[in-house]
Amino acid sequence: MAESFSTDKAAVSAANGAFYRAFAEGDFGAMDAVWAEREEVVCIHPGWPPVTGRNDVMASWRGILANPPQPAVLPTDERVYVMGDAAMVVCFETIGEIFLTATNTFLRQDGDWRLIHHHAGITEHRPRGAPVGPTGTVH
Amino acid sequence: MAESFSTDKAAVSAANGAFYRAFAEGDFGAMDAVWAEREEVVCIHPGWPPVTGRNDVMASWRGILANPPQPAVLPTDERVYVMGDAAMVVCFETIGEIFLTATNTFLRQDGDWRLIHHHAGITEHRPRGAPVGPTGTVH
Repeated sequence: MAESFSTDKAAVSAANGAFYRAFAEGDFGAMDAVWAEREEVVCIHPGWPPVTGRNDVMASWRGILANPPQPAVLPTDERVYVMGDAAMVVCFETIGEIFLTATNTFLRQDGDWRLIHHHAGITEHRPRGAPVGPTGTVH
Repeated sequence: MAESFSTDKAAVSAANGAFYRAFAEGDFGAMDAVWAEREEVVCIHPGWPPVTGRNDVMASWRGILANPPQPAVLPTDERVYVMGDAAMVVCFETIGEIFLTATNTFLRQDGDWRLIHHHAGITEHRPRGAPVGPTGTVH
């Protein structure tokens, strides 16, 4: 049970990493694969109102990934919470000297953890850890 | 099944309402009862870094509720997502002419939906609906 929970956390963390990798690489196909195959998804980009429904959420990402932030958005101080077939990651996002906090919610679909919700917003606080690069290297 | 899902959504919505009612009324005891009885809870107040662990989260609320925002924080445009024993509410928060977006995540504990995560941040966008008062009346 404990081992399975630990494996779940690692799998959720990997899914979270795949989200930020797709973001950093401006890879729309990879971003599309990260999101759950269901209508009920929602995304709150920093300062935006919630975008709801898969088509509108992916359209928002198509726009953002056409001109992704430079430097890349790097996650750090990740905390993973698993609740059955749902899971949540709370982390910082670092864009150079800009810091955001993010909540990413995942749903297990056919054994894979897929994103159903992303919420990011500006903070003036710095993460404690160094951001982790999109390839997993610490910068 | 559909009816049960609908009942779950209504129960989650009621739990979300209880959170904002405790907030509006500055009622620490009610706020404490809203949050799950477990160590793994997390709260991102607007602009703050994530506060983690039940003691620290409740200490943050004790401070905020000693001097709650005036006018009260009113939720609107609520969307409820149920995922087994976890659920998520995405809504706007209105504080007079200030608008925030919020994600509230709930876990079913002994049949009750309890908050395990609150994340709120400023937006420049207005909600579509009128805010709902803490007693359920539309202002």
